[in-house]
Amino acid sequence: MNDWDGPGERRVSLAEGAGGRAMRALIQEVFLQSGPPGPPGTLGADCMDDGAAIPVDGRWLIMTTDSHVVKPLFFPGGDIGRIAVSGTVNDLAMMGCTEPLGLTLGVVVEEGFSRELLERVQASIAETCREAGVAIVSGDTKVMGRGELDGLVLNTTGVGFAPRVVRDVGLAHGDLLLVTGTVGDHGLAVMAARGGLELGGELRSDVAPIGALVRRALDAGGEGLVAMKDPTRGGLASALHELAAKSGLGITLDERAVPVSTGARAASELLGIDPLHVANEGKAVMAVRPEAAERVLAALRSHPLGRDAAIIGRCTTEQPGRVIVDTGFGRRLLSEPEGEPMPRIC
Amino acid sequence: MNDWDGPGERRVSLAEGAGGRAMRALIQEVFLQSGPPGPPGTLGADCMDDGAAIPVDGRWLIMTTDSHVVKPLFFPGGDIGRIAVSGTVNDLAMMGCTEPLGLTLGVVVEEGFSRELLERVQASIAETCREAGVAIVSGDTKVMGRGELDGLVLNTTGVGFAPRVVRDVGLAHGDLLLVTGTVGDHGLAVMAARGGLELGGELRSDVAPIGALVRRALDAGGEGLVAMKDPTRGGLASALHELAAKSGLGITLDERAVPVSTGARAASELLGIDPLHVANEGKAVMAVRPEAAERVLAALRSHPLGRDAAIIGRCTTEQPGRVIVDTGFGRRLLSEPEGEPMPRIC
Repeated sequence: MNDWDGPGERRVSLAEGAGGRAMRALIQEVFLQSGPPGPPGTLGADCMDDGAAIPVDGRWLIMTTDSHVVKPLFFPGGDIGRIAVSGTVNDLAMMGCTEPLGLTLGVVVEEGFSRELLERVQASIAETCREAGVAIVSGDTKVMGRGELDGLVLNTTGVGFAPRVVRDVGLAHGDLLLVTGTVGDHGLAVMAARGGLELGGELRSDVAPIGALVRRALDAGGEGLVAMKDPTRGGLASALHELAAKSGLGITLDERAVPVSTGARAASELLGIDPLHVANEGKAVMAVRPEAAERVLAALRSHPLGRDAAIIGRCTTEQPGRVIVDTGFGRRLLSEPEGEPMPRIC
Repeated sequence: MNDWDGPGERRVSLAEGAGGRAMRALIQEVFLQSGPPGPPGTLGADCMDDGAAIPVDGRWLIMTTDSHVVKPLFFPGGDIGRIAVSGTVNDLAMMGCTEPLGLTLGVVVEEGFSRELLERVQASIAETCREAGVAIVSGDTKVMGRGELDGLVLNTTGVGFAPRVVRDVGLAHGDLLLVTGTVGDHGLAVMAARGGLELGGELRSDVAPIGALVRRALDAGGEGLVAMKDPTRGGLASALHELAAKSGLGITLDERAVPVSTGARAASELLGIDPLHVANEGKAVMAVRPEAAERVLAALRSHPLGRDAAIIGRCTTEQPGRVIVDTGFGRRLLSEPEGEPMPRIC
């Protein structure tokens, strides 16, 4: 018996945690209500970007948080610990952070959880931290009773400095859109693992910290790298819709240019789910001025995590807020998903 | 069926989340293993203080995190939202932070949770933020399926600057211990609410942001304010044991000097639980050099949240690591609790 049961009440739905339209509405209607503003000049929660940016002595302190509820805890290519570190490091990077200072780790675990599994998760956290060049500097541990929590929830929050903030607004007509690699691998790998789908080991989550890859693009693109977003929950489709809506522009996506791995392609056909609609955990979408595009692309491809980087679309003044897919045979409107097709994907 | 069930495994216990010895052991054995260090000079997770301190341009960036699982969500004197903001703001203050920059808020909520209750929690978060003079600058929302989570879990992480770090070490023989007000109110109020105990409205949680109170003490005490700790999970007993152990000193506690409210006294007698052993959410313990004690005490008492402040003990070289209670009739050893007597107190 929960202490919040009552008749006829409006209730939170799974879609409201799935990274798409429904979630944005919940955040706007509930969590952005009536709080005080941050320090003067702060780009805060109301910007609904990948993190906050607070002006400090001529640079920006970036701050971002994510909770992680993925199930199963271990899946091909990664685990909840690797996601917890990568997700936060990548959100810092998406805001232009080039100097991560530290992460905090909040652990909420169910009573009776295997100590050995917890140690495996911690080993993965430590390894991913080393890969990303960032430390867990502080933490918190809570234990909930049996039946009060399914397994393990992690929260990671990160801070770091950015010389300039890269936001998810400010796109202009003619800007090109790049993605740093194949899309859909993470969400489809988790769904396949949950469904017991056998795909011959070809499908693995892309979960990885991409701070170093992003720094390479920032160095190459300079001010010509206009905007960034990591296409996590809701996938590339959701990220492109947010970019388009926030700048009041349309986006034309060249479907044949979007990199999709063989494994993700197979899983997406088996499951009937478009790889554009599912989460990535080691990718970025970048909007760049046309003159900077080849430089940024070359810089991305010079990094192991960016070798499949591609130019996938263009911003236009047509159809503001919409994403048009050019299939090569014709054009269709890309639907804006409610969010991720399955819960607990990250 | 959980994916982590196996025979004969060592398992996480409720005590390991309760703020006492068992939790410290879990953190040391699991979470402090093998991660990389923070930036040079960082006081990180291995210090097991209330937060981390990272040196930045001649001052310290403080970073601290807490997850909140309290049940019931609303109780006399507060609610989960007020705890979430106060707990993190207070941990920042305990590290010497005088300039909080912002908080992040991670929300994990069960599918079907009442939207109206979520709005009430958010209103309390916003109000407590205004009281504390700090904003939620970024957030994250996840929804777990029915039966996968009991209600609501919040994570708040805070950052801010400190001109100097106040740690929980460095006590010396003769230092005096102060508490900023009555102890035990929070834990006992939650336990009473959960048990349906009627105490005539006299017992209320003390949950409050005490950054302004602490700044007053820092201004008055200067370097003479040696150490601070907030006696949350495990109560005053746990905080004093940590202070004693970390400095290799003993502490003599004058039991008659410890402020306990009438309501907490009544509940503690009814429940058979020592108010020294339960959580506070709006109090601090301070160690001060003898010559600074009266100044700090007067500064605390000049603030509405510190009017019951008292000198409650003294550091000695006798019995290192132990806390001796002087009852007025004799002396007894204060037991070091495993942690909070009940789970989900904060």
